[in-house]
Amino acid sequence: MAGLRGVKANPTNLIRVMPAEGPEMQFPDESARESVGEIASALQERVRSAVPAVHCITNAVAQNFTANVLLAAGATPSMTLDREEIAAFVASCHALLVNLGTLDRERRAAIEVAVTTAAENDLPWVLDPVFVDRSASRAAFARELVARRPAAIRLNRAEFAALSRTPPTPDGAAAYARETKVVVALSGETDLVTDGVRIATLANGHPLMAKITAMGCASSALVAMTLGVERDAWRAAAGALALIGVAGEIAAESARGPGSFAVAIIDALHSLDGPTLLARAKVA
Amino acid sequence: MAGLRGVKANPTNLIRVMPAEGPEMQFPDESARESVGEIASALQERVRSAVPAVHCITNAVAQNFTANVLLAAGATPSMTLDREEIAAFVASCHALLVNLGTLDRERRAAIEVAVTTAAENDLPWVLDPVFVDRSASRAAFARELVARRPAAIRLNRAEFAALSRTPPTPDGAAAYARETKVVVALSGETDLVTDGVRIATLANGHPLMAKITAMGCASSALVAMTLGVERDAWRAAAGALALIGVAGEIAAESARGPGSFAVAIIDALHSLDGPTLLARAKVA
Amino acid sequence: MAGLRGVKANPTNLIRVMPAEGPEMQFPDESARESVGEIASALQERVRSAVPAVHCITNAVAQNFTANVLLAAGATPSMTLDREEIAAFVASCHALLVNLGTLDRERRAAIEVAVTTAAENDLPWVLDPVFVDRSASRAAFARELVARRPAAIRLNRAEFAALSRTPPTPDGAAAYARETKVVVALSGETDLVTDGVRIATLANGHPLMAKITAMGCASSALVAMTLGVERDAWRAAAGALALIGVAGEIAAESARGPGSFAVAIIDALHSLDGPTLLARAKVA
Repeated sequence: MAGLRGVKANPTNLIRVMPAEGPEMQFPDESARESVGEIASALQERVRSAVPAVHCITNAVAQNFTANVLLAAGATPSMTLDREEIAAFVASCHALLVNLGTLDRERRAAIEVAVTTAAENDLPWVLDPVFVDRSASRAAFARELVARRPAAIRLNRAEFAALSRTPPTPDGAAAYARETKVVVALSGETDLVTDGVRIATLANGHPLMAKITAMGCASSALVAMTLGVERDAWRAAAGALALIGVAGEIAAESARGPGSFAVAIIDALHSLDGPTLLARAKVA
Repeated sequence: MAGLRGVKANPTNLIRVMPAEGPEMQFPDESARESVGEIASALQERVRSAVPAVHCITNAVAQNFTANVLLAAGATPSMTLDREEIAAFVASCHALLVNLGTLDRERRAAIEVAVTTAAENDLPWVLDPVFVDRSASRAAFARELVARRPAAIRLNRAEFAALSRTPPTPDGAAAYARETKVVVALSGETDLVTDGVRIATLANGHPLMAKITAMGCASSALVAMTLGVERDAWRAAAGALALIGVAGEIAAESARGPGSFAVAIIDALHSLDGPTLLARAKVA
Repeated sequence: MAGLRGVKANPTNLIRVMPAEGPEMQFPDESARESVGEIASALQERVRSAVPAVHCITNAVAQNFTANVLLAAGATPSMTLDREEIAAFVASCHALLVNLGTLDRERRAAIEVAVTTAAENDLPWVLDPVFVDRSASRAAFARELVARRPAAIRLNRAEFAALSRTPPTPDGAAAYARETKVVVALSGETDLVTDGVRIATLANGHPLMAKITAMGCASSALVAMTLGVERDAWRAAAGALALIGVAGEIAAESARGPGSFAVAIIDALHSLDGPTLLARAKVA
């Protein structure tokens, strides 16, 4: 694995810890000793206690589903885009989501104000560079945003390849995370979350998640939600993707297709509890 | 109760009638003798017969759910915002909803045209000042709109406090209604509807209503719908909130969480009938 | 039937073939010999194999439902409106939807770029002139768009009457299709699809389809989807309306109202198969 000196499975949770430098394998911090289920369970409890306010600049297709996912998981969403108001909303929230779907002038202006306000208030934010593989101008805009240091980016493999101009592999993701100092959360059949040193490969989820619009957008919103209660962005991203992955598996058990699945995953997020997360969250 | 000389429970329906002046208790009109269930049942029948057209300026998060709630309840929604078209839409509708969520330039311009057109055509309109507790500029804009005399405002207690700068109590709401000559419909664990003289405190609903985005927005749209068939704004607001509250209770009986609840409340609104409203609508 | 010299039921599928000129009845092409079920079944198979990318300029109310309908049916939706990006999205898709609901400046600008890009790339597009019966300026704009030759327009009878200034009859639709060289797909209790020569009257569907917002918009998106795999716009439109009509019938069997119907129709579109389409698709 290029640029990494050691890769080792943690026997209790299979989170791989990869020190970038040094002659020997080491675990850089205690968080790598937790299982993904423990991380997700602990974050869920903190979310339900703190009810973080999450301001979302997100695409019109995703707004309703994203708001309902956040409410079900225990957060308070807001979604305004107006440049005269957005600073007040961002300044009074706990975390920000910047999603580039249905990007228009209003949203570009809103993003500028929101990201500046987040920096001034030391608020964590998540970038979801939707469809950067379909538009070169959007990819360029996304790269400018990465340089402004979101806590995390969540995207799929095609989007990652277009954004980073590197292959969407664990190696490529970890290298990009180190270079940009941004946690990378790659969604797919397995999810991969890395800060360049720690890598979690998450194995929950269900194929129906790819048949519903805005599932990725909602996952990014959940990363913002957990960032509202956890400043270690790698833990926040891993925990959030475990939450939605486990909820997806539970939803699939009763769904008769993508329509009922979209309903059931909101029910599942609402009723998820610690024991279920501990029992079901798993790594690849 | 400040400014009110008498408060009395109506033995048949518990709607309190509070004459602002005069030495004795009096019932100012016959409507106070109806039960909330009778009001809701009568309005529902008129809606289904007249199929009022309701034009909605509402936030992007709420548009789809609001449209489906209106269709299920028996109205015809329209949602365009374009300043070149909106006058034609408003002039050909029966009532207007002005919701301040996701307020942007397009919506501000649309509101100006729509409210002017409503006044010219003597059409009732409802103001829903979403999140005025989160943005001072939005609260100021909302106050300007209240001065243009909507038939009713529907909002939660935090929004009422920010808008009126008075406590969200029955007294405060009634005083604000008298001062502004606008019916106030306060949503919460119990709903409160007052024109400054009459107060109904409605006890239907379910906690899951707070876990779904746009439930308040949809309630405001139902107030606009009933205003399309009833010019007594206090009756219209009380009946609309009873409709959604009873539908929420029915939906909760089969829901497994907020996702299935959002689906079931639309089903319930569609199948609600007079006997069910008479049996279930209740006051606190 | 004015302007038509002969009308004859095709005994195997009841698609009427109406030569506009000539002394005798004739079948202009083989496609008229297929049943609607055969057309729908063949198109569904091609969609699932090709996974066409459908770019949608559609109204804010319809975006989420439309995206989920397209995903369930087997396509990949995109929805961006930004004038700087939309050319890239349209140039890389297989078909375009132009829906005039919630028409605003952003959408007008997007439509101009998108239609020009579609023409340059010889991509088929569908026009859905929502609510042209409610706005004269929108009707005028829709007429300009018809002159730019969409492959098909899908609309209801009131919209057709306002757009074409002719009655929404089979005759009127066929005459307008010949005049504009655009396939007309009229939705209603029965659907009517004509290119001016061939007419299919489709008898699937369910009254609950009229109680859900964006059902027509989603139907138009399905016409775009089938155009992505079939250049005969009459076959594409007839097949798409059969797909949604059969899915609606299946959904109604388990729905308890419009809320659960909207969920179930997405499930049904996802699970539809060829034998079901052959058994259920029918003409009036």
